[in-house]
Amino acid sequence: MKAAVYYGPTKLDVTDVPIPDPGPGTVQVRVAYNGICGTDLHEFYAGPIFVPTSPHPLTGQQLPLVMGHEFAGTVTAVGRDVSGWAEGDRVAVEPIYRCGHCGPCAAGNYNVCAQIGFHGLMSDGGMAEYTVVPVDMLHRLPDAVSLELGALVEPMSVAYHAATLGEPTPGDTAMVFGAGPIGIGLWFALRGRGVEDVFVVEPSPTRRAAIEALGATTLDPGALDVPAFIAEHTAGRGAGAVYDAAGVEPAVRSALACVGSRKPMVSVAIYEKPLTTPLLNLVMNESRIQGSLCYTAADFEAVIALMAGGGYDTTGWVTTIGLDDVVDGGFEALHAGTKMKVLVDPRAS
Amino acid sequence: MKAAVYYGPTKLDVTDVPIPDPGPGTVQVRVAYNGICGTDLHEFYAGPIFVPTSPHPLTGQQLPLVMGHEFAGTVTAVGRDVSGWAEGDRVAVEPIYRCGHCGPCAAGNYNVCAQIGFHGLMSDGGMAEYTVVPVDMLHRLPDAVSLELGALVEPMSVAYHAATLGEPTPGDTAMVFGAGPIGIGLWFALRGRGVEDVFVVEPSPTRRAAIEALGATTLDPGALDVPAFIAEHTAGRGAGAVYDAAGVEPAVRSALACVGSRKPMVSVAIYEKPLTTPLLNLVMNESRIQGSLCYTAADFEAVIALMAGGGYDTTGWVTTIGLDDVVDGGFEALHAGTKMKVLVDPRAS
Repeated sequence: MKAAVYYGPTKLDVTDVPIPDPGPGTVQVRVAYNGICGTDLHEFYAGPIFVPTSPHPLTGQQLPLVMGHEFAGTVTAVGRDVSGWAEGDRVAVEPIYRCGHCGPCAAGNYNVCAQIGFHGLMSDGGMAEYTVVPVDMLHRLPDAVSLELGALVEPMSVAYHAATLGEPTPGDTAMVFGAGPIGIGLWFALRGRGVEDVFVVEPSPTRRAAIEALGATTLDPGALDVPAFIAEHTAGRGAGAVYDAAGVEPAVRSALACVGSRKPMVSVAIYEKPLTTPLLNLVMNESRIQGSLCYTAADFEAVIALMAGGGYDTTGWVTTIGLDDVVDGGFEALHAGTKMKVLVDPRAS
Repeated sequence: MKAAVYYGPTKLDVTDVPIPDPGPGTVQVRVAYNGICGTDLHEFYAGPIFVPTSPHPLTGQQLPLVMGHEFAGTVTAVGRDVSGWAEGDRVAVEPIYRCGHCGPCAAGNYNVCAQIGFHGLMSDGGMAEYTVVPVDMLHRLPDAVSLELGALVEPMSVAYHAATLGEPTPGDTAMVFGAGPIGIGLWFALRGRGVEDVFVVEPSPTRRAAIEALGATTLDPGALDVPAFIAEHTAGRGAGAVYDAAGVEPAVRSALACVGSRKPMVSVAIYEKPLTTPLLNLVMNESRIQGSLCYTAADFEAVIALMAGGGYDTTGWVTTIGLDDVVDGGFEALHAGTKMKVLVDPRAS
């Protein structure tokens, strides 16, 4: 079968590899679509970062391996000791391997497991015609959710999880800094949780236009004093929940000037370096910065339910390409900023 | 009567002013001791910062005024419409004026009231023989709590409030960065809440010696890799609650490397400028930075109860001076670091 195999920085080769067979407790999935994630970009240009160069404690795998951890598809074979799953089942895959016994795992927060691994970073993943996954990674897709949307469940769950950590209530004013795929996911998640008064702060006109087309209200930080606007809009109370999906200093500074007393700024960004952060803002109104990482099964289920209800829309920000085009039409286009979200169809060329 | 009147930067004159009479709803307090706070130092050297230069909306007062917001004393006269208080009552004063109707006030968090004022910063305060305060600021001192300890209730409540926001449980490993008066207060508060495994991180040998003499275990960040020590001590879990009472970059960096998954670093420091902060640490283990400001009545009552039970000790870190010595023996000595906490006795010279 065809697969995109990662060998190290800028070395991602589409090549022929054996079709994997399901072992005990696993199923074989025919991948319909696999999204390219910001983490994949970091691996491609500056890796290996997460991809292990010695056997990973939970998967036993290491470089080189098949990339791809955002995918959906159809079960095509079932291993021994598997019940409840059958050929033809349509699934989204929650790609987390966890140890199951550390403190966070015991508390149900396996997204911060000390040994965490990802299918498609620590094992052969979804940029291939087939992949084999443990059954505890499977989430059933209802008929109303397309396999294209199914491949977006993973990144949308990253955003949904962060939205939840912000503890917004429907009457709150919420703010999303950054209108990339996670920012878009935050907007969908907040709307899905009944929060209507959401402002998306984004300096890029292209990204503003994309999220506006989905129905969002945007603010241009180059044209507007955003904290002053929010202070007036909320009669001085500040925003009830603020999300940083930009990961840059001006966004964090502005976000912390907007957040209300005892309210959170949720960080769901990969900060490439420590930022100059006005911590005094947190002290003066007892606000907080809350980190958010990945998701758990509950987030996957919530996103799938919202998708089934029509709560997500791929118009204008999601592009599908064939596997042969994964480097030029995928990684390079995302890196250049000419595309926002790319799904790879392993059977198209 | 004698009082220390603040006129502006480095102008604090001990002078004669009229004894204030209690109006309706207020009492006159004969001040026994009034502590000098870090905020007072900022006012003295770089103010006016909090001291208003036009009438404050809640107190109507402005520069010049009598400084001092950490004090205890004895009720000497009672105004009209006051019940429940009488001459001779020994009291600690919780010096917050609040609007009573903003969102935070309505939620009971008047410590983050949008219009907050402090007795001794926005009105004539406790560095005087007498002061007049509204009865809702009064907390009764039991016989077991000396007036000297009573003057420490305010700063100890700042620390106790922060300790509470860290949500520590008795089995946790807790860490306090900075062994100034607030760091000492955090140590007492954590012990008072049943947390036994506390490490105080402090680079100054003098400050380490002072808090060690009270019974604390300290770590010298100049001699030890603090995050590595805590990782080993907690078998990789990290600290359950971390407190920054230092307000400097190395402390914040180290604190965020020590805090466990989904646990807080509580900021109870006046950050003089934005710090370079490794926000990625927060994301990778879903930890958080929680700001902490002042206290509410519940914190005052908790501290007084702990004091009554013998939970606080002034040995080695508290010095008492007379009012005439307030600049040299108070502000200048604190500024130079030769004293840690200074109480002013308005009747001593």
